[in-house]
Amino acid sequence: MSINSFGHVLRFTSWGESHGPSIGAVLDGVPPGLALSEGDIQPFLDKRRPGQSRFTTQRQEPDQVRILSGVYEGRTTGTALSLLIENTDQRSKDYSDIAKRFRPGHADYTYLAKYGHRDPRGGGRSSARETAMRVAAGAVARKILGAGVVIHGGLVEMGGDAIDDAALDWDEVDQNPFFCPDAKAAQRWAERLDAVRKSGDSLGAVIAVEAHGVPAGWGAPIYGKLDSDLAAAMMSINAAKGVEIGAGFEAARLSGADNADEMRMGPDGHPRFLSNHAGGILGGISSGQPVCCKIAIKPTSSILIPRQTITSDGEEVEIITKGRHDPCVGIRGVPVAEAMLALVLADHMMLHRAQCG
Amino acid sequence: MSINSFGHVLRFTSWGESHGPSIGAVLDGVPPGLALSEGDIQPFLDKRRPGQSRFTTQRQEPDQVRILSGVYEGRTTGTALSLLIENTDQRSKDYSDIAKRFRPGHADYTYLAKYGHRDPRGGGRSSARETAMRVAAGAVARKILGAGVVIHGGLVEMGGDAIDDAALDWDEVDQNPFFCPDAKAAQRWAERLDAVRKSGDSLGAVIAVEAHGVPAGWGAPIYGKLDSDLAAAMMSINAAKGVEIGAGFEAARLSGADNADEMRMGPDGHPRFLSNHAGGILGGISSGQPVCCKIAIKPTSSILIPRQTITSDGEEVEIITKGRHDPCVGIRGVPVAEAMLALVLADHMMLHRAQCG
Amino acid sequence: MSINSFGHVLRFTSWGESHGPSIGAVLDGVPPGLALSEGDIQPFLDKRRPGQSRFTTQRQEPDQVRILSGVYEGRTTGTALSLLIENTDQRSKDYSDIAKRFRPGHADYTYLAKYGHRDPRGGGRSSARETAMRVAAGAVARKILGAGVVIHGGLVEMGGDAIDDAALDWDEVDQNPFFCPDAKAAQRWAERLDAVRKSGDSLGAVIAVEAHGVPAGWGAPIYGKLDSDLAAAMMSINAAKGVEIGAGFEAARLSGADNADEMRMGPDGHPRFLSNHAGGILGGISSGQPVCCKIAIKPTSSILIPRQTITSDGEEVEIITKGRHDPCVGIRGVPVAEAMLALVLADHMMLHRAQCG
Amino acid sequence: MSINSFGHVLRFTSWGESHGPSIGAVLDGVPPGLALSEGDIQPFLDKRRPGQSRFTTQRQEPDQVRILSGVYEGRTTGTALSLLIENTDQRSKDYSDIAKRFRPGHADYTYLAKYGHRDPRGGGRSSARETAMRVAAGAVARKILGAGVVIHGGLVEMGGDAIDDAALDWDEVDQNPFFCPDAKAAQRWAERLDAVRKSGDSLGAVIAVEAHGVPAGWGAPIYGKLDSDLAAAMMSINAAKGVEIGAGFEAARLSGADNADEMRMGPDGHPRFLSNHAGGILGGISSGQPVCCKIAIKPTSSILIPRQTITSDGEEVEIITKGRHDPCVGIRGVPVAEAMLALVLADHMMLHRAQCG
Repeated sequence: MSINSFGHVLRFTSWGESHGPSIGAVLDGVPPGLALSEGDIQPFLDKRRPGQSRFTTQRQEPDQVRILSGVYEGRTTGTALSLLIENTDQRSKDYSDIAKRFRPGHADYTYLAKYGHRDPRGGGRSSARETAMRVAAGAVARKILGAGVVIHGGLVEMGGDAIDDAALDWDEVDQNPFFCPDAKAAQRWAERLDAVRKSGDSLGAVIAVEAHGVPAGWGAPIYGKLDSDLAAAMMSINAAKGVEIGAGFEAARLSGADNADEMRMGPDGHPRFLSNHAGGILGGISSGQPVCCKIAIKPTSSILIPRQTITSDGEEVEIITKGRHDPCVGIRGVPVAEAMLALVLADHMMLHRAQCG
Repeated sequence: MSINSFGHVLRFTSWGESHGPSIGAVLDGVPPGLALSEGDIQPFLDKRRPGQSRFTTQRQEPDQVRILSGVYEGRTTGTALSLLIENTDQRSKDYSDIAKRFRPGHADYTYLAKYGHRDPRGGGRSSARETAMRVAAGAVARKILGAGVVIHGGLVEMGGDAIDDAALDWDEVDQNPFFCPDAKAAQRWAERLDAVRKSGDSLGAVIAVEAHGVPAGWGAPIYGKLDSDLAAAMMSINAAKGVEIGAGFEAARLSGADNADEMRMGPDGHPRFLSNHAGGILGGISSGQPVCCKIAIKPTSSILIPRQTITSDGEEVEIITKGRHDPCVGIRGVPVAEAMLALVLADHMMLHRAQCG
Repeated sequence: MSINSFGHVLRFTSWGESHGPSIGAVLDGVPPGLALSEGDIQPFLDKRRPGQSRFTTQRQEPDQVRILSGVYEGRTTGTALSLLIENTDQRSKDYSDIAKRFRPGHADYTYLAKYGHRDPRGGGRSSARETAMRVAAGAVARKILGAGVVIHGGLVEMGGDAIDDAALDWDEVDQNPFFCPDAKAAQRWAERLDAVRKSGDSLGAVIAVEAHGVPAGWGAPIYGKLDSDLAAAMMSINAAKGVEIGAGFEAARLSGADNADEMRMGPDGHPRFLSNHAGGILGGISSGQPVCCKIAIKPTSSILIPRQTITSDGEEVEIITKGRHDPCVGIRGVPVAEAMLALVLADHMMLHRAQCG
Repeated sequence: MSINSFGHVLRFTSWGESHGPSIGAVLDGVPPGLALSEGDIQPFLDKRRPGQSRFTTQRQEPDQVRILSGVYEGRTTGTALSLLIENTDQRSKDYSDIAKRFRPGHADYTYLAKYGHRDPRGGGRSSARETAMRVAAGAVARKILGAGVVIHGGLVEMGGDAIDDAALDWDEVDQNPFFCPDAKAAQRWAERLDAVRKSGDSLGAVIAVEAHGVPAGWGAPIYGKLDSDLAAAMMSINAAKGVEIGAGFEAARLSGADNADEMRMGPDGHPRFLSNHAGGILGGISSGQPVCCKIAIKPTSSILIPRQTITSDGEEVEIITKGRHDPCVGIRGVPVAEAMLALVLADHMMLHRAQCG
């Protein structure tokens, strides 16, 4: 089963807690001969790294990744790739208070119910810190996919304020602290999130990720569906509460005639779809159109506004969660969702090769 | 990998095509000693069975399930359970026409791109007929879960017409042909779907499923998350384009303060949540609240309204898809989604037992 | 986990009991486009079929295999292949006697200990009848491997009487009822086994299987080792108690200098090994030499010589096992071991393709 | 697939090369609440540690294990356990010579054939150094099994000189440098191995491992068989060429009457077997008797006696393998085989719990 693993033939296993000595991952099944160094991974980690703007947690982590195995003389060997990041800014403090109070929206209550025991330091295993390893592995997955597959990701909605699809500009994403593909929305969001942050509250968001250049034929019918695996991957991201492929819930509101992605021959002599409600996946298999996915991220549960809760002793109390938190955890979810998309695609590229040569 | 399988320790593998001699499934890992006969499975199949109202396909399939292994003297033996349903109403006809034209929204194009060859009879493996086996396996999963876990499912939106959450009445579900938990909405939908059906078009829908009685502690952090597995399960249903856990995309529009499910002690001395935006899952683990999931189902792609497409020879043509189709495939998706919920929960019940005793 | 499955990307799942209505298997991950019909599978089943000589069980089973899915117009579609064989000669009788007495060497006691309940009819799931499905799946695996990989199998030892390696002649295998690659040994064994059969006793045997034409490079280091997977596959055959790769236990008696398979360049300009103590596998990966494996098969536990045992009520009794049994179950194990070799190799061929292109 | 992983629900993944910065493993699925510290693991590593006698490699590695995740305040949390050992004595040298010559019996040739590229430093991933992580994980598996299951291991044959089964004394194992359960044999072996070592040659060996206290009922029929999993586990150990369960190949030489493990009621009112040819496993499921397994380990391939080989350029050359090697690698294989036995048993204990409660 491997409850900390993901993938079919490209298999990703992560380990580590927010406030332990380090976090890490093993990526198994990486094809041999790929040029790979820490320098290929670091830029993606830097993009996710906390403390880069006032809109993300002030925890300072350099997040320097080390490759401990699977690479020799700058090339992957085909053996297991071990990736490790030291935790450097895990503040030592007394957790006895937090350890007893169940923070609403956190896994405190359920971990205790399951394991009868848990690591309360910074959320332990349930901390979003684990996602750094996904980003690192995602960088390797991009290498496997090669330059032909281009992945975009951004925040397309914050606190209910959605950007206009027509305004979507992927080049804008790196120009603002929200990975927002719409400059005007980014401005609106900055003002709004400043106010929310000061009030001690938080906002939810919607992430969009797309992969261009995926050939038709990746995926599988029924249970190894590309969309089924994407849904699992995206829903495994901390705070994710919803996943859409293509038009998603909007498709459920269209008629069959309107939802149909009609086909013509393109000027290049290749099939061409006239729309992409399907999000690039038909019957679990890629269609050659961009693979498109949206993820709903709930507002950060760690807020300064007092909420009612109970303790593990059954006492009714109020709780506010001090500490270093993202006022909109969806922002840093963008590089994570991109990484998951890359991992799922690379896995299916390899699966396809296994079966169809 | 097993691209036709699902589950960790309770492992479901299905096989069969729409117009082959039969369809079937193997359910592996079933606990021994459970009372089980075809009679326990058949009622769920009957609920999903086509041809029961004018709103579903007119294909006539008795869908009589046979248990071929894994049961002895009325009890499960702990060995692999084999389930089989004969196809009886697969009409013999000439598929050469369909085989060449890619039906928009169908897997015709992608199967051909992947496999270079496909079974065009009634959609072959991509037909919703496969879901009969999920329903059969789901009935066994309910046995594993026991009477303490109660699963509800219904259609809560059709063609954009959503029912009021306040009107939700699970007892109503079996009183109308839509599994609609709101009698008034069912009336509106009947009129609407009649018109749509006559026009040769189709409608999308949203399914809601809930499990009551799930104890706190099932699931796992990170990749074997209960919500991640549910997302994969639901997105693997034919025509599914979106999945939400709890408040889903609505959670992304709430503030952290509003989204928090606060806790108090109940009058029975047990913890009590004051709301359930989380859908009964926190950090991938069940919280003891109802596990709630919604699934967006796109409108049936097989419609009588001409759509533009191409043939496998690259010819630009128009297509209408005659035959026996559901004007709203979401309706018959309800028992399928219930079955997937039961399968995921039973799997996690067993996984939890493996690790936590 | 799937306790009734085998394989990484070519995944085999079997189901069925000796005296149930039928037995079957699902083979998942089969490449598309392979020419395949029942006629490709049947000859291998015929080879394993009981009742062909006085040295095997007199149960009469035509073992006619049916392909229920995954093939269209004579070619594999890439979707799950379902194979089914009806049980026709399962004699109806009263099992209450057997059901209580634990037959020594059988799984009666352990099944009851595990499941608290079992199907005693003909051994239920633990019957060697399940191996018919392995043989059927192995025939498909051979198709995947293609004509370049040639598999041989035979009995090289019976009741301690081993054939001389120098006398090994694969063409002889089909000329005697033992799959013995040495005509003289076959004669000796016939006399011996006749006597043993009449005395109501049974003999053990050693099976050898070889695959020629496997290219260097299939397999994986550490846990997905070709030899590790072969060991699991062979040890999963009923009555198997030992597995050797290459020189096996004999290698443990050689010095490093003697055990070394030295290399030279062959006249064809390709590397050539001067011996094959390694059995064609180095570090878990095929070397291009024949892949060689031996399997120890214990003597049939069902004998007519009274043995001491107990009942499920704790009563001390004697038992003889009447019925239709193989006096040397190793004989019919030969096509099974060949099939397992084919399945493991085809799986690793596909795995290799996934990772190394 | 996960080619560097092992286990069903207790999942072990290792990584690292002989001469990389470190080696490590992730153990996933560990039950929560177990008391665990580095001190519980270290004694087992010390037992396997090189350089402890003149009969093992002179490489000096302290093999200090660190637990990087999954333990909080001295107890397992139920989340992934990360284990790491720094490599400290990896000598820097020029590998260009070795890199070209294929050492007979090593994976040099097959790794290159598979990956087209490899890490030649000390054997890279194919080095027995990886087994340190198995030993570490095995120590955790023992914790999961609890004190009721006692594991013994020893060398029962070296260079063809086997100990008398009657002389087997597990208390003797820690009194000699061979883990030999027979003091007299240990003396003979010391003289012999000294001579072999000085001649630059090496010897093979046979390891025996036993688990006492395993209750009846662990394992599964057909593919998740306890013996099938043990065979895979043992054959995955470096240099293993054969595996036997119970009487193994000797069983193939017995008659059915002689091989039968007869049963009586014990004086304690429990079933009692009169012999254990089955090695504690019937039909893939533990019988309550000691689980017994033997493993053939080939002689170390790294010897100082010149052997013929070729280079990657196709040049015919001679090779001797200098460096720090074990003259009988079977010795240090003992704690590794014990660890694999513990891992397989703990996995099956948990699997049994999943299905049978």
